[in-house]
Amino acid sequence: MNHTNPFDAATYTQRRQQLKQQLGEGLIVLLGNEESSMNYKDNWYTFYQDSTFRYYFGIDLSGLTGIINIDTNEELIFGPEQSIDDVIWTGPLPSLASLAEQVGIKKVMPTGKIADYLKSAKKLHYLPPYRSEHELKLQAWTGETVLEPSLALIQTIVAQRSIKSDAEVAEIEKAVTYTSRMHRHVMQFARQGMKEHEVAAEAVRYAKSTHNLLSFPLICTTQGQVLHNHYRGNTLQADDMLLFDGGIQTSAGYAGDMTRTIPVGTTFTERQRELYQVVLDTHEAAMAALKPGILYKDVHLLACRKLTDGLKQVGLMRGDTDEAVQAGAHTIFFQCGLGHMMGMDVHDMENLGEQYVGYTPELRKSTEFGLKSLRLGRALEPGFVLTVEPGIYIIPELIDMRRNDKVAQQYINFEKLDSYRDFGGIRIEDDLLITENGSRILGEPLSKTIAEVEAMRQQALQL
Amino acid sequence: MNHTNPFDAATYTQRRQQLKQQLGEGLIVLLGNEESSMNYKDNWYTFYQDSTFRYYFGIDLSGLTGIINIDTNEELIFGPEQSIDDVIWTGPLPSLASLAEQVGIKKVMPTGKIADYLKSAKKLHYLPPYRSEHELKLQAWTGETVLEPSLALIQTIVAQRSIKSDAEVAEIEKAVTYTSRMHRHVMQFARQGMKEHEVAAEAVRYAKSTHNLLSFPLICTTQGQVLHNHYRGNTLQADDMLLFDGGIQTSAGYAGDMTRTIPVGTTFTERQRELYQVVLDTHEAAMAALKPGILYKDVHLLACRKLTDGLKQVGLMRGDTDEAVQAGAHTIFFQCGLGHMMGMDVHDMENLGEQYVGYTPELRKSTEFGLKSLRLGRALEPGFVLTVEPGIYIIPELIDMRRNDKVAQQYINFEKLDSYRDFGGIRIEDDLLITENGSRILGEPLSKTIAEVEAMRQQALQL
Repeated sequence: MNHTNPFDAATYTQRRQQLKQQLGEGLIVLLGNEESSMNYKDNWYTFYQDSTFRYYFGIDLSGLTGIINIDTNEELIFGPEQSIDDVIWTGPLPSLASLAEQVGIKKVMPTGKIADYLKSAKKLHYLPPYRSEHELKLQAWTGETVLEPSLALIQTIVAQRSIKSDAEVAEIEKAVTYTSRMHRHVMQFARQGMKEHEVAAEAVRYAKSTHNLLSFPLICTTQGQVLHNHYRGNTLQADDMLLFDGGIQTSAGYAGDMTRTIPVGTTFTERQRELYQVVLDTHEAAMAALKPGILYKDVHLLACRKLTDGLKQVGLMRGDTDEAVQAGAHTIFFQCGLGHMMGMDVHDMENLGEQYVGYTPELRKSTEFGLKSLRLGRALEPGFVLTVEPGIYIIPELIDMRRNDKVAQQYINFEKLDSYRDFGGIRIEDDLLITENGSRILGEPLSKTIAEVEAMRQQALQL
Repeated sequence: MNHTNPFDAATYTQRRQQLKQQLGEGLIVLLGNEESSMNYKDNWYTFYQDSTFRYYFGIDLSGLTGIINIDTNEELIFGPEQSIDDVIWTGPLPSLASLAEQVGIKKVMPTGKIADYLKSAKKLHYLPPYRSEHELKLQAWTGETVLEPSLALIQTIVAQRSIKSDAEVAEIEKAVTYTSRMHRHVMQFARQGMKEHEVAAEAVRYAKSTHNLLSFPLICTTQGQVLHNHYRGNTLQADDMLLFDGGIQTSAGYAGDMTRTIPVGTTFTERQRELYQVVLDTHEAAMAALKPGILYKDVHLLACRKLTDGLKQVGLMRGDTDEAVQAGAHTIFFQCGLGHMMGMDVHDMENLGEQYVGYTPELRKSTEFGLKSLRLGRALEPGFVLTVEPGIYIIPELIDMRRNDKVAQQYINFEKLDSYRDFGGIRIEDDLLITENGSRILGEPLSKTIAEVEAMRQQALQL
């Protein structure tokens, strides 16, 4: 339920107006999401609205479809009508017509009429489906089994949504502040002897007690090297680090996304301290490089070089930094990308295609290991919101794969690295807005240096 | 992740054996669930496995399909193979072959081969799809756009799964005990001035801290009359009642489902006390009537009569009890059914169709208001697990609808009822096993009488 919508009808009308002008012709179909079923039809997951539908039509309810008919200059919403049974089961809700009016839409029609309505279209624009029910609906409405999403629509929407308005930035800042506070809470809550899932449970409680959703499934693990880790059965040990990656989505539908890595005790071990500082230095260097015009791919590569320099100091890498990074040697430690666009989606507009959101026709996404996981490569513009999240991940399986690799032999000190096999992983992540001259970290500041983090843990554990 | 599976390979083999014998011929396709996407493909909801797949094939991972080929006596699982990228992103997992072996399956094949495999089938049995991706997969594999689920398969599975084995009952009892403890925690935690979502957040924390899932979205509301209430913005007021309906699903995939209604203060008001006692008496009477052979529909109607008797005592209903219930007059207070089957699904096997799970060819589900919401009507058998959950719900919109209704005029005291318009709702729900001679409440006992509930609140609020 969209209980605190900071955007008014004029905002949605203007957004649709801009889309119409930029796209020029045709009929745009934007599918809202349906309820998602867990183990039977009516046992529903928490509803997440499609972000593009919400950007242009604002309503946070299931089963709606937005139409922008450029050719007839008509805008309408198709949806179900409320029955008396609905009133008995869910209580009285405002009518679809009144909800539509709040987002500047004067016409609503029952979903059953949509296929007929679409027949009048000379040119139909729709986005790539990422849920099977989108696919089934589009097939049924268009009569086509092979769908052809509109590249022009994708590109127009990406161009519009990539630049966040001041009101959007304010809402994202709110999401990041909630996120930052959840992190602070977790950083103070975690204790030796707890299970990972107990810490995660407390984080979920914190998020829900703010009456917001999580923007993605939490990562809360002592095994930070497992990048997409949703197993939570480990017990926090004194010498472990806990990596917590989580974000809150506000009721208006904007996401935050931060990561911190803390010692389970009050201090990092010597090894942890060394590598944490390498990641932190990389994080700072990457953030300092952010400004309009720079390719994010170049910021990523700068971060890779900084990381390599740091790892050389520690004695885990060796040789010429530029050559090592060019050869991809650093990817034994840093396998993924430096960051991604963020907005209504935590990976903003990922369903529209990473090539279109993060790259350009001139700058294609690489297929090389490491760079193929970089979701954002293109030149930055004021109004972009993105994450910076370098890390070091010691993955034993990857070490073994690379052990006899020529490139790795040259730049990696395997002898030393072997004693790090059970080290784990470190990531530090903040969310930033690209400004006219550089960038600005969003949200309430959160401890990040070794001194700050250790002081926070010492204080928390004294309680 | 299926981290504590109490069922061994012999159990699954025996279950499949029974299914083969009962069904007799053809090729059975049981679809496991896929990951479900929130706002883009790779942003996933918590995974819930399909319960039928899990009952016969045990594995709690996404993207699998189980095959039981009765004609060739072959059993196998189709699934994806793990790549080196998977290892880097999610850590090493046991191979599909080794997981399959744990559930008595010796053959696994890549999903890509499934359509070819199915071509050999003389007769294909599959269940009704409740997720769109099931529909798309079945369409692709069978080449049919109009699917025809197998009635014989539905009926055979319902017959088998309706009778819970001792090991299943033990697992359900575990789920209900977790559920009972979550309720006790919430009954002690709730305080005047809290928001509903804060209480719900604490319940979620409790559930997750046990490393289990919720079996359905929590209902946590001061507006208990809204039957499917997922709005949680109200503040708990001193004279409110809080209705909490929640259940925990164990890691082995069995559900609990209980409801309690408590005063936000330490005592019920006089009115609340009166109606609470009516619901409690109804609950006790219904539970006492449970035994093999009795139609659950008759238990429901007995409960309706008991409720009507109680409401007559309070002065909200009048006239002959039997006639009032026969006329459906009580449905102004009790609009829904007395209970449902419970097992791996909180509404067990609901995706197979309520007519088949809760009724028989001779006993069709009614279409009358009230009875049409009764999910279970058929004769009870030892081994059934079900809920008993009567309630009183004062729905102003329904009162207004019925005000000029002939039946209602005769049996309802509208003058008095009008002063109850903002009363709210009460429900009391427990989970029971049908035994050889009667029934048994499952799980750790939880306060339920007025004296018990008020004592609990008094104790909690003194802390």
